[in-house]
This record gives sequence, structure tokens and C-alpha cells, in this order.
Amino acid sequence: MKAINLAGKLASFDEHWAPRIVGQYNDNDLMVVKVKGEFVWHDHADTDDLFLVLEGEIDIEMLAETVTLRAGEMFVVPKGVEHRPVAREEAHLLIIEPRNTPNTGDPATAVTKETI
Amino acid sequence: MKAINLAGKLASFDEHWAPRIVGQYNDNDLMVVKVKGEFVWHDHADTDDLFLVLEGEIDIEMLAETVTLRAGEMFVVPKGVEHRPVAREEAHLLIIEPRNTPNTGDPATAVTKETI
Repeated sequence: MKAINLAGKLASFDEHWAPRIVGQYNDNDLMVVKVKGEFVWHDHADTDDLFLVLEGEIDIEMLAETVTLRAGEMFVVPKGVEHRPVAREEAHLLIIEPRNTPNTGDPATAVTKETI
Repeated sequence: MKAINLAGKLASFDEHWAPRIVGQYNDNDLMVVKVKGEFVWHDHADTDDLFLVLEGEIDIEMLAETVTLRAGEMFVVPKGVEHRPVAREEAHLLIIEPRNTPNTGDPATAVTKETI
């Protein structure tokens, strides 16, 4: 058993919007992801969506409002709430979702989450 | 809806080993806690136990081995694994546990987790 060094995990890849699984907590995947630009609008009907910014800054756009997150800030998008993450510059995030949650909210367009 | 600033939440209290609830993710409490010294040996029969070090350094002692965590490092104690967190100097953590999990593994000795 060993510590999961988040910066070390993030240093091992460059792709944007391609979450890497770095651990598990109960039935959830613990993931790190690099983001830049606009993701797609989506929601998760069955789960909240947890974002913790490790480096940089992102906006979580929702229909009614936008929440800006900086390093050291966390936000949980409640289940069913449509949202779009946007990062003007590259940002690094820790995200938590139940195992097998499609990152786009739709299995047809979701990326496969590699474990690193 | 607003960002949860972890350092800001941590600055609002001084007690050690007294987790504060700062948000919810599905049926889990998201908590920040300041720790210093030795906690009690305990396990959680029904849940993994997630630790992310935000500042400082802690040891997660287990019967077979000890894992040291520094800022930016995460560790999940598997359910049922006996462990004791130890911090030589004050450290600040993000922890995640299912709602109503006793922090000592035993409702009789657990602290009440205040929401801030």
C-alpha cells in the first residue's frame, strides 16, 4: 500500500479531458485530470460530481450560475444539474465519481478511464 | 452554490481531531480536519477511509506497515483495516467518509461532526 502522489500522477500524461484513475474509495473512482478549454454540457442523472482544483482555475458553468474554482477549492455539482467545466488555461483537478460513470454523462461519447 | 475554500474553512477553527463537514458528495461527508499527535487505533467495518493531506505530513500506521503522506498525497485505508493516524506536527487533511461514520470507528467514543 502506498501514498498516491497527485502531482506525480499528473506529470505522467499530457492529454486534456482524459481522466486517469489513481485509486478507489468504496465504489468510487478517484481520478486526476488535466483540463483546458470547454468541455461539453452534460449532467449525471444518478450521481453528484466532485471537483477539487489542484492547480489553475476552472469555471463550472451551470444554467443558472457559474462557480469559479481556484487551487484548493472544491465544488460538488448536484446530481441532475446540467453543467460545463471550462478552463481558460490548463488546470489540474481531482475528481470523484462512482465507478463506471460516463464523463460526458452519456456512455456513447464517454472516454475510457485508464488506471495509472 | 459556491466554491468550498478548504484553507478558508481550516482557518475557522483550531481544535485537533475534530472534523468539520464542509460539503456532501452523494451519501458522503466531505470534511476538513486539523490533526496533531496520535489518534486512536480503530477500523471502519463498513467503509474505506480517504485521507488527502493539504498541509503538513502524517503517518497512517497499520498493523503490517506505515504509509507516510505529505501535502498533495492521498491514501485510502481499506475497510476493516485497523489504522492509527499520527502527526508529529500539525497537519491539515481533507477526509471523506459515508455520512454518520464514527471517526473512531465506535459511536460511543466518536466526536460529533459540526458543519461549517
